[in-house]
Amino acid sequence: MTNNLDTFFGAMSDPTRRAVIERLVSGPAAVSELHAPHDIALPTFMRHLMVLEESGLVRSEKKGRVRTVHIEAAPLAAAESWLQKQRAMWEGRLDRLSLLAESIAKAEKG
Amino acid sequence: MTNNLDTFFGAMSDPTRRAVIERLVSGPAAVSELHAPHDIALPTFMRHLMVLEESGLVRSEKKGRVRTVHIEAAPLAAAESWLQKQRAMWEGRLDRLSLLAESIAKAEKG
Repeated sequence: MTNNLDTFFGAMSDPTRRAVIERLVSGPAAVSELHAPHDIALPTFMRHLMVLEESGLVRSEKKGRVRTVHIEAAPLAAAESWLQKQRAMWEGRLDRLSLLAESIAKAEKG
Repeated sequence: MTNNLDTFFGAMSDPTRRAVIERLVSGPAAVSELHAPHDIALPTFMRHLMVLEESGLVRSEKKGRVRTVHIEAAPLAAAESWLQKQRAMWEGRLDRLSLLAESIAKAEKG
């Protein structure tokens, strides 16, 4: 889990790679379609795809001359779950602080 | 937003820095308390804290000889919201695929 989060967050720290993920959540796409909106050379773009594939965030398959890229949803879910857990802890703390503030206010009134 | 996500995901790609965040969601802590569970030299640990502070994920204040570190919740919320959006798109796609499969099955029966 730890290593997966390392890899996922590392891969997602780049805007080009996030843009690829944002496109792939709507369905598989050919490399050429994924590359089109990006104003960077194809080899540079392919290196970003390779990072995503090596991180297990996408997989790809080649048929004839077209390589199609698919998203793997599990790493996204794991990262979201980690963030949700942090928020739950944080909100739990805010709730406890708010209860504490209430009880102090009551004690001061009484 | 893009830059914030770059910075947030980059900062969270390291297990030591994630552990600091996991601790701070329960409340502020002194640097010495944050460092204690980690088997790394203090200067190395301080560099991790500096990355977190420069990314806007934490802030710290010094009173006398004690530096206390607080979490900033906004970047966590922004990253969670980005991931939620991706999941929603992904699940929407799965729903559409499932409806499509149903209507094909019906067409084949009828």
